[in-house]
Amino acid sequence: MKIAVDAMGGDYAPGVVVEGVANALYEYPEIDIVLVGHSGKIAYYLEKYGIASHPRLSVVHAPTVVEMSESSATSIRGKKDSSITVGAKLLKSKEADAFVTPGHTGATLAATKIIVRTLPGVNRPALAASMPAFSGRFLLIDAGANIDVTPMNLAEFAIMGSVYSEFLYGVENPTVGILSVGGEDSKGSDLTKEAFKLLEKAPVNFVGNVEGNTVFEGACKVLVTDGFTGNVFLKTSEGLANSVKYWLNVIFRKNIVRMIMGLLNKKAFRELKTNGSSELQGGAPLLGLNGVCIVGHGSSSPLAVLNAIRLAGECIKFGVNDKIVEKISRFHKLLEEESESEKSNTEQDV
Amino acid sequence: MKIAVDAMGGDYAPGVVVEGVANALYEYPEIDIVLVGHSGKIAYYLEKYGIASHPRLSVVHAPTVVEMSESSATSIRGKKDSSITVGAKLLKSKEADAFVTPGHTGATLAATKIIVRTLPGVNRPALAASMPAFSGRFLLIDAGANIDVTPMNLAEFAIMGSVYSEFLYGVENPTVGILSVGGEDSKGSDLTKEAFKLLEKAPVNFVGNVEGNTVFEGACKVLVTDGFTGNVFLKTSEGLANSVKYWLNVIFRKNIVRMIMGLLNKKAFRELKTNGSSELQGGAPLLGLNGVCIVGHGSSSPLAVLNAIRLAGECIKFGVNDKIVEKISRFHKLLEEESESEKSNTEQDV
Repeated sequence: MKIAVDAMGGDYAPGVVVEGVANALYEYPEIDIVLVGHSGKIAYYLEKYGIASHPRLSVVHAPTVVEMSESSATSIRGKKDSSITVGAKLLKSKEADAFVTPGHTGATLAATKIIVRTLPGVNRPALAASMPAFSGRFLLIDAGANIDVTPMNLAEFAIMGSVYSEFLYGVENPTVGILSVGGEDSKGSDLTKEAFKLLEKAPVNFVGNVEGNTVFEGACKVLVTDGFTGNVFLKTSEGLANSVKYWLNVIFRKNIVRMIMGLLNKKAFRELKTNGSSELQGGAPLLGLNGVCIVGHGSSSPLAVLNAIRLAGECIKFGVNDKIVEKISRFHKLLEEESESEKSNTEQDV
Repeated sequence: MKIAVDAMGGDYAPGVVVEGVANALYEYPEIDIVLVGHSGKIAYYLEKYGIASHPRLSVVHAPTVVEMSESSATSIRGKKDSSITVGAKLLKSKEADAFVTPGHTGATLAATKIIVRTLPGVNRPALAASMPAFSGRFLLIDAGANIDVTPMNLAEFAIMGSVYSEFLYGVENPTVGILSVGGEDSKGSDLTKEAFKLLEKAPVNFVGNVEGNTVFEGACKVLVTDGFTGNVFLKTSEGLANSVKYWLNVIFRKNIVRMIMGLLNKKAFRELKTNGSSELQGGAPLLGLNGVCIVGHGSSSPLAVLNAIRLAGECIKFGVNDKIVEKISRFHKLLEEESESEKSNTEQDV
């Protein structure tokens, strides 16, 4: 199993990436790694972490880097030899079974959509983010890849998310809900109402509309939404979590007794942090691409890089993409049959 | 100043509403109150709280109640003599200067839209919710009244929100942002991109796109969005806040030492709760209606009812609606002039 890793991705590249790769080579003997990036800039870190001549590591040179501040479109047009584009090409040519980047989500999406393309039957790849709930986690799809979508896109996201969360959380037939306003079937926008009808026919365990508050109480395992709303959902959760952290700090510092208690409670907060941590998740896959692609957080640590590599390996082993293709084709076939039977019914009526 | 109050609204009606009204009559000698609801069911509480023959209180009988579980549309069609509909009619006929209901947001919106109608120049009323940030608060508009909207609707929401938050927070020329994905001007959906262009011309302090995380850090005082995204934003914040509360409880209960610390910290948590409390806000106005209408939380306490009445009184005193009409008409005039000058330019070119 060969996994390409973008050495230049993220805020602390290439140092943390190479350190994460070194750990992954040690932890996962079944995984070969292709580091993609500026070979000159990587060399120092390969020496530092003792993997300069590791038998399961190779380096593919990519002279340019997409900076985190660059726009996706211009970076892809302007930097055809960036580590992201070169990584995507390795995935396309099957020289790598998966591509991991702790970097620029937008640029990765743009490059892989053009170079790697989508799985048969899938119109749009979507970003699937695992988020913490009261107990356990749930999958948010799409977390921000597609701003304007159709009801059919949402139905496909639901199927992809269902397959992936079955693997990720080890649950059979995970519950799937549409993020909407009000839990009743009739509530929602034109988009969610049409998607609702499609999802009633889709091969998933559809539980209907789900609201932004009940999802944290476990209303569903897969939360389906467009990339605009999904991104707002993700960022709001992030912002509010930071807000609460800030308030707690302020409150605990108000007097000396509380300050001491605050210090004593540090361990408790560390646990809270772990529960909500993205480090252990490693990253979010772009589901629906014709290849496994994991996007890590821009501020990934070596541990996050290691976990992103592990996740990529597991996606390959579990055959996530084959299962997606199978379910999506079953769904499209069902819709076709239905529309044909309607047609023949109409003809008979005539 | 006469304020109509829906005695039957909310989960604990009419008891808590009458208690809140009794306190308001005592606290605000300049406010007269018209209680709207089932006179038989109210009578007991009027006696209990000693306001049965209060000189500044009158009761208007409304035989039916819109239950919190009912759908907005059917409740309005089916119950033409509900406390919400009767309250809206009092507002329309100017027998009341404001209408306060701690009840059903959807039904209130539906009834007031039909009966009270909108202010001149305003196409849609919007729900404006005040939310807690790191320091201070910000205004979310629309928090859920309009699911599918146009860019012009968003521009009008921005103007209304700007006027209202100037009054509510006592800040001059408050910053206004569009809730979007990515802070750059070019980011967003078709809807937000078009609204962005309109807001650059609007008489507000427009700061561009704002993300769901930075808004909690004070990125803007007025956060403009459609009612679908706004409702998701609101519910997600609510859900996550509950989630954090739950985690903290679990963590603090893990061992006895921590349990004691948890108990000692109760006061700290109470402060946190106050910071995020909706009780002190009283409720959210439906801005853009041709009359002042405040919707309280369904689980309103007497204190929340009191504060909703206070808020209604202040909206009248500050002349929120007159200021909205003035700013909206200035905005529409500006757009007209612009389109005329473009036309004449084109004619000159010819």
